[in-house]
Amino acid sequence: MSTVDAITTDTLREVWPMLSLEEQLEAFSLLPRDMADDFFLELTSASQANILENVRPNERRIWMRLLAPDDAADVLQAVEDHSLRQELLSVLDPTTRAEVSALLAYAEDDAGGLMNPRFARLRPDMTVDEAILYLRRQAKQRVETIYYAYVLDERQRLLGVTTFRTLFGSAGDVRVSDIMETDVVSVPEDMDQESVARLVSQHDLLAVPVVDADRRVVGIVTVDDIVDVVQAEATEDIQKFGGVEVLGGPYLQVGYLELIRKRAGWLAMLFVGEMLTTSAMTHYQQEVLNAVVLALFIPLIISGGGNSGSQASTLLVRAMALGNVRPRDWWRVARREIIIGLSLGCVLGLIALARIMLWEYLFASYGEHYVLVASAVTLSVIGVVTWGTICGAMLPIILQTFRLDPASASAPLVATLVDVFGVVIYFQVARIILGA
Amino acid sequence: MSTVDAITTDTLREVWPMLSLEEQLEAFSLLPRDMADDFFLELTSASQANILENVRPNERRIWMRLLAPDDAADVLQAVEDHSLRQELLSVLDPTTRAEVSALLAYAEDDAGGLMNPRFARLRPDMTVDEAILYLRRQAKQRVETIYYAYVLDERQRLLGVTTFRTLFGSAGDVRVSDIMETDVVSVPEDMDQESVARLVSQHDLLAVPVVDADRRVVGIVTVDDIVDVVQAEATEDIQKFGGVEVLGGPYLQVGYLELIRKRAGWLAMLFVGEMLTTSAMTHYQQEVLNAVVLALFIPLIISGGGNSGSQASTLLVRAMALGNVRPRDWWRVARREIIIGLSLGCVLGLIALARIMLWEYLFASYGEHYVLVASAVTLSVIGVVTWGTICGAMLPIILQTFRLDPASASAPLVATLVDVFGVVIYFQVARIILGA
Repeated sequence: MSTVDAITTDTLREVWPMLSLEEQLEAFSLLPRDMADDFFLELTSASQANILENVRPNERRIWMRLLAPDDAADVLQAVEDHSLRQELLSVLDPTTRAEVSALLAYAEDDAGGLMNPRFARLRPDMTVDEAILYLRRQAKQRVETIYYAYVLDERQRLLGVTTFRTLFGSAGDVRVSDIMETDVVSVPEDMDQESVARLVSQHDLLAVPVVDADRRVVGIVTVDDIVDVVQAEATEDIQKFGGVEVLGGPYLQVGYLELIRKRAGWLAMLFVGEMLTTSAMTHYQQEVLNAVVLALFIPLIISGGGNSGSQASTLLVRAMALGNVRPRDWWRVARREIIIGLSLGCVLGLIALARIMLWEYLFASYGEHYVLVASAVTLSVIGVVTWGTICGAMLPIILQTFRLDPASASAPLVATLVDVFGVVIYFQVARIILGA
Repeated sequence: MSTVDAITTDTLREVWPMLSLEEQLEAFSLLPRDMADDFFLELTSASQANILENVRPNERRIWMRLLAPDDAADVLQAVEDHSLRQELLSVLDPTTRAEVSALLAYAEDDAGGLMNPRFARLRPDMTVDEAILYLRRQAKQRVETIYYAYVLDERQRLLGVTTFRTLFGSAGDVRVSDIMETDVVSVPEDMDQESVARLVSQHDLLAVPVVDADRRVVGIVTVDDIVDVVQAEATEDIQKFGGVEVLGGPYLQVGYLELIRKRAGWLAMLFVGEMLTTSAMTHYQQEVLNAVVLALFIPLIISGGGNSGSQASTLLVRAMALGNVRPRDWWRVARREIIIGLSLGCVLGLIALARIMLWEYLFASYGEHYVLVASAVTLSVIGVVTWGTICGAMLPIILQTFRLDPASASAPLVATLVDVFGVVIYFQVARIILGA
């Protein structure tokens, strides 16, 4: 048996994201034609663009014509070469080409960029029997779904929606206007895809119509695209949250240079920010010389603040992404987090106190002033953890207020901000207590 | 106009997650009955359970009977009181009760726990006309979708699937067995929900059948549930990643005690782990005394390692959740991350070197041995960043290998692990260089 026979789409699908571009092209070219069709349709736009860029020109028509208008538009947006983009557009049939060109005018992550302009439409004065017949005809064309049919007036404005199932369960001579649902959830063309996803998931919809300023329906967004949006938005949030710029593809397919570039930027910025700790500590060198034991606790104290800050910002970033917290709730959040920060600070402070007293008792580690050192460390931990918690919770809210992405309040950013204050709080407390 | 009139389900839906339990109950009781029905169906299982726990017993029947079997099972799983659970089960009609009881046997986050046992079924020897008639009858019962119809043999084993649209576009006298798709994607009862979601999204399905060990279809999972799964799994991953135990509900609805408990555990563990830095530094007190300037760079160096580690673990945790990296790819990942870690280390090392030389030139900050200090800091930064990157990338893979959740390789955990080594690397390098 040759390796060609051994390839099934299932195994190929599984290993696909781990293959190099060359391997992907080779594997794809080995697929029998019927399998290749299905497989091509399942790929991400980026992978489809890669294939189109590398197949022979006469094959491009085959693959482009398989795509629904919204998917074709996504692929064209993923193609970097301008002249290839024109060529790919030109192999489409004239109707689709016009639809795709219209879609290309929308931002990729707006409702307009997600929608398919082909949807099932009905007139309000049709009877149920006429509607079913009419949908049967539309089912043979390439509408995205016939399961939701939108009822439009003569100017294409949205009057209502009905499901195929409702039509099917109704008497044949009833008018569509009598059974349609008029309270329709619809979205404007420029609504961002995260909000569209939230609406679709809240209402458990299979599709949502996209309307222009005159309430004319210009297309529909279907739930299979929403699943991809939710997945992609979560990936973006998680990457931002780890202090990485959003990657352009699956981890193993992103090149070294892109990986380094997308990580070095934030890392260098945070590193420069962290240098403020060095500047701050310069003022406290005398304290360290007087009691070198103070230096031992620096990592412990600043990491306590950083970790509690990361926790708080994680919770708030996600709560805001899910629409559970809005900037105007800031005071409710602040009140909660002050109480929680103080509680967490006391827990960690007590652990630190216990540890210092125990080590002193067992090993006499911390010299004659160990009570003062223990007090300074305990109080600092309480202060730093409380401060870290408040900063971590407020930073996402502040970013959102200024219309920046709350997810930029990453764990590393919060930790760095808190570190600087942590050092100052620690040494200031130590100066007061040990000065006494 | 009273406030009652002013409530619309749209505004209520928006503020719902921010209301206290009492406010939710009051607002819900003010809704007119027809709005209340729709609104109730859109709520999460946890909210539905809250309402059922607090309405009058004779109302419970109304709400429970609105729910599809899979949703009813989810609500019962969210009810804590055992006797109330029995009561809620008893108000269902006998068929639904049997279905719900069967579903309760599955783990909530398996395919079996997500599925609806009511689906549209066909026999292979039916004609298309018979099939459409038969589906029309099923559409009036409470099957979850008639848009996918599953073709079963006499023992309920899966033979194929067809869409309503295919039936609708076919000639009336063709047999179902001639038009059905036999290459059906199905999932076993105990497949975890994350894998089910991945399959559905990869194949752009509206529903996927769940089969038992004998390939009998026991239910279907629909795409609207998948959207919720993807959203919930992302929330879990993000919370774990921020070093918080997964919360039981929206941020503003979780009580103080739960919030403190779910954060204090990890925080205390990390704090105790971080104490190893204190122990490690005890061995280097003499170095600090000899050159107190070394202490100034402690936060800078350990945070550089922590941040680069967080970045690497973020990328790997997400790549593994999306199925783009598997444990067996560890060497490809390690090779990439060693090169990237070294590159990032050199970038940060050069920044540190530039900063020390500049400050020395401007302010003569670091004493006569500034060249040695600068060398020690630069080399340590390179070492710590490389080490942090490798640890951050490998920890999620190691966790997965031992069948633990890679998302537990949280930013705070990686930072803490790296801190301890960071301190040792720094002082060991300093001892060698400054000892010379």
